[in-house]
Amino acid sequence: MEDKHVAPLKTVRWEDGKVIMIDQTKLPNQLVFVEYDDYNQVANAIQTLVVRGAPAIGVSGAFGLALAALQSRAKNKDEMIADLEVAKKTLFETRPTAVNLAWGLERIMNVAISCDSVEQIRQFVVEESKKIAEQDVSINRAMGKNGSVLFDDNDTVMTHCNAGALATVAYGTALGVIRATKESGKNVKVIATETRPVQQGSRLTVFELKHDGFDVSLIPDTAVGYAMANGLVDKVVVGADRIVKTGHVFNKIGTYQVATMARQHGVPFYVAAPLSTFDMKSEYNDVTIEMRSSAEVTQVGDTKTAPDDIDVINPAFDMTPPELISGIITEKGIAVPPFEDSIKKLFD
Amino acid sequence: MEDKHVAPLKTVRWEDGKVIMIDQTKLPNQLVFVEYDDYNQVANAIQTLVVRGAPAIGVSGAFGLALAALQSRAKNKDEMIADLEVAKKTLFETRPTAVNLAWGLERIMNVAISCDSVEQIRQFVVEESKKIAEQDVSINRAMGKNGSVLFDDNDTVMTHCNAGALATVAYGTALGVIRATKESGKNVKVIATETRPVQQGSRLTVFELKHDGFDVSLIPDTAVGYAMANGLVDKVVVGADRIVKTGHVFNKIGTYQVATMARQHGVPFYVAAPLSTFDMKSEYNDVTIEMRSSAEVTQVGDTKTAPDDIDVINPAFDMTPPELISGIITEKGIAVPPFEDSIKKLFD
Repeated sequence: MEDKHVAPLKTVRWEDGKVIMIDQTKLPNQLVFVEYDDYNQVANAIQTLVVRGAPAIGVSGAFGLALAALQSRAKNKDEMIADLEVAKKTLFETRPTAVNLAWGLERIMNVAISCDSVEQIRQFVVEESKKIAEQDVSINRAMGKNGSVLFDDNDTVMTHCNAGALATVAYGTALGVIRATKESGKNVKVIATETRPVQQGSRLTVFELKHDGFDVSLIPDTAVGYAMANGLVDKVVVGADRIVKTGHVFNKIGTYQVATMARQHGVPFYVAAPLSTFDMKSEYNDVTIEMRSSAEVTQVGDTKTAPDDIDVINPAFDMTPPELISGIITEKGIAVPPFEDSIKKLFD
Repeated sequence: MEDKHVAPLKTVRWEDGKVIMIDQTKLPNQLVFVEYDDYNQVANAIQTLVVRGAPAIGVSGAFGLALAALQSRAKNKDEMIADLEVAKKTLFETRPTAVNLAWGLERIMNVAISCDSVEQIRQFVVEESKKIAEQDVSINRAMGKNGSVLFDDNDTVMTHCNAGALATVAYGTALGVIRATKESGKNVKVIATETRPVQQGSRLTVFELKHDGFDVSLIPDTAVGYAMANGLVDKVVVGADRIVKTGHVFNKIGTYQVATMARQHGVPFYVAAPLSTFDMKSEYNDVTIEMRSSAEVTQVGDTKTAPDDIDVINPAFDMTPPELISGIITEKGIAVPPFEDSIKKLFD
């Protein structure tokens, strides 16, 4: 039986040997579910943003490997591991910045390696990937509860991109914190940025918050400064695609300027992310920022918004330095500055 | 004979008792010219962004009043002035923030009031409006020449919105400075922001700079911080819709956050605007910020990008405070901080 608290939007799930996802490229106009039985379809879905959001692609990657295990005609464990390595590489290369994808793939590989037979691998990787999906929701609920203490009754909270149910299996990270704040009895309003170029704010965040009865207003990305300068924003909360040990946060392009405007106006800026988003090995200048296609910027749907054949700089992510961040909300508690110490403690 | 230096894109002009404009809502896909012989058509064109950009709507307002004078069936001067007052009100109310519109309308009204007869009014207001259009180009050339000294060889210059030929009669204010820099023999590259919600950056700035052979790259508005943090930007130059005597600049929504990011990264931030953009009477908190329709944010062309019936905050302009501005380039020279003094001197 479905937990009645879980938002009815289930972004990605496993059912009868298939992966079922909401096709987020069709939102907000149509709520369409797609079914995949081939890991290459899952890789393509990640690449084309059918599914997006660091936690959701972590789970999708795991499900993709589970499909690869079912697809494999391996006759022994070594052949199976070799097949899974090929699938893992294909899945990993779809989005280089979000660390949850690597984390999900690694977790499944470790399970596979620990098994004895092809049949056991098939069974255990499917079970493990379903477990990752279930844990995603419980982690989000814990994170939400931890973060909700930071928000006051009648706060208006700005968020950028979509770190909601649609970026996870359900409930969300940043929007999970907003949901938990509301569930704790506080009144909360949301201002969502459009989040060009792919409009995850207007297409996804506004869609899911409206779906759940929130008071939400949409602004173009250009109006962040106006909203802050006019006192419309009490706090900001966003998700993350990768957080390194120094507290540098990689998140959707535009996050850095939202954080800068928040600092300029004394508005607290919070990041909500599960521990699976932390990369404790890399330095901030080692992280690859994914560059995406020009077409995302030069057209919207079928409408062309720029001349043909122009140069476009379309980075998917930017980096927010720790000095702009008031706190990082996780399922294990809230890390506060200095982040190098507080992040380390989360992993003790 | 056309000045060979004037860009072939003539945004708005008077010809045989008609106003001819480029329909900027059709750019960059089609270069279409529209003809108006009724001032109400001109008012509607300003409202619907067929023509936009503070200097261009100043000239359009003046041409609109000239059409009103030709349309009027007044039998004496008093009736004519009354008709012009009605037209002036209609034209003025189309865009409350840009001060050039009020300036152009006032200049025509003063000419009309100084005349003796209905026939003389018709003749003189047409002449005066054509003079305003001609002066716009010579002012832009003077401004460009003044501003070009601020830019170095091989600079990459970021601009927001369109303060180009398409925002003026020709040549442009901010883009006029960039054109003059290139004409002075310096190599210059441009990074243009998309400028949501109406995409004047991708539709207009990229269009006109590419048309004139510039090296221009387009970024989404969310990538301003990324571009600055990655050292891609040497200087910023933007236009203005209104500048008050304290140096607070009202310009296209998003300008404030571009200026803030520039300050954060030590990138000089310049504003280029003719003296007709200065409002020496108002305080900065008296200026009305025009709020525009939700549809500009919730759809692009025919593509819906947000759910139905959502709340949208869509301000057309924001205010950049003087402490973020390195200099204001005008046809009479460059005002530098402290602006209260240097702006006053421009009008001495």
